[in-house]
Amino acid sequence: MAGAQLSLYAMSDDFVAIIESAIAAIEPFAGRIRRETDDLSTLVVAEPHVLFAVSRAMFTSAAQSGSHCVLSALYSRGCPGESDAGRETVSDQALLSGTVEERIQAARTAVAAVAKTGVEARCQFALYPLGNGSHMDEINGCIAFLRESSVFDRTKNYCTKLRGDAGPLFETLHQAFVFSGDVQAHVTLDVTVSANSPSTR
Amino acid sequence: MAGAQLSLYAMSDDFVAIIESAIAAIEPFAGRIRRETDDLSTLVVAEPHVLFAVSRAMFTSAAQSGSHCVLSALYSRGCPGESDAGRETVSDQALLSGTVEERIQAARTAVAAVAKTGVEARCQFALYPLGNGSHMDEINGCIAFLRESSVFDRTKNYCTKLRGDAGPLFETLHQAFVFSGDVQAHVTLDVTVSANSPSTR
Repeated sequence: MAGAQLSLYAMSDDFVAIIESAIAAIEPFAGRIRRETDDLSTLVVAEPHVLFAVSRAMFTSAAQSGSHCVLSALYSRGCPGESDAGRETVSDQALLSGTVEERIQAARTAVAAVAKTGVEARCQFALYPLGNGSHMDEINGCIAFLRESSVFDRTKNYCTKLRGDAGPLFETLHQAFVFSGDVQAHVTLDVTVSANSPSTR
Repeated sequence: MAGAQLSLYAMSDDFVAIIESAIAAIEPFAGRIRRETDDLSTLVVAEPHVLFAVSRAMFTSAAQSGSHCVLSALYSRGCPGESDAGRETVSDQALLSGTVEERIQAARTAVAAVAKTGVEARCQFALYPLGNGSHMDEINGCIAFLRESSVFDRTKNYCTKLRGDAGPLFETLHQAFVFSGDVQAHVTLDVTVSANSPSTR
């Protein structure tokens, strides 16, 4: 299992209704996730691919309102500070395996296979492989995958920018999250995804 | 120098005007910061204490509109991937020094000395000291400071929650950011600060 703190923002007087619709849009996942909501975010604990499917469903629901909306999310796996009794660790099957080159190829294949949603999105994210000495090697391997990705936009200070359909975009985030095949690795991903911004029209 | 990607969200049909006012509120800092805005965030490069003063000014301006608003920010120092020619590293003077215990005391003193703003805020954040083997020790030292802080609320999965006046709250974030006195340390801070949420009224 892995988890995320998901916050959805809608730049509209109707933000409560937009957020309630987005939460209804994740009901089909109810049996496969654990969730908890407070005033700042919704915690979702699930397998990595479910986590990103839930994120995409929340985001595309809000985007389809037509309002400028943003999903801000903090994904985490392998956090040694989490002592949630009975919580499983991420299974080997959920993670990429092999050399950095093999993992890049597997991630590209997964992104190419995913269906489009019709929702255009802009994204920036930072990936943090924590608690090992080779964290820049892992980041660089992941950036090599991203640079050739169909949704790569550019690097900017402290993060990487993506743009494109929300389908391949969220799959790209999922692949970045599982890129490090080490089951013990503590990896976090800090993500901002935006739709309908007046700055991009 | 350190830097941040700052994104401000206002849950209002008037979000453009609220954000423009918040950007005007940081004009007094213009000579001490470098900034760049795109459709997702504003990059601010500055000394750490200026970075958090700018963040507080943007947030309190937006909060004073009365609308539900959120500042989402990614702070970074010492990132080895940043090759910004001529950019200085964080100075020793900007960081805390001494043992973990001495740094906890210095951070508490700084938070106690700061003026209140009259703006009530809720916050959650994650601190990542990257690229060294002792990252959980540093996180735990920082959590010890936070647990006794006047704005500490609770820990939750993957992050720590704060609540209180935006003055001591942003100073607490600043102290967490400079907590590691190592000038070479790569430290990032992922922050969400919220005001006027209907969930907390």
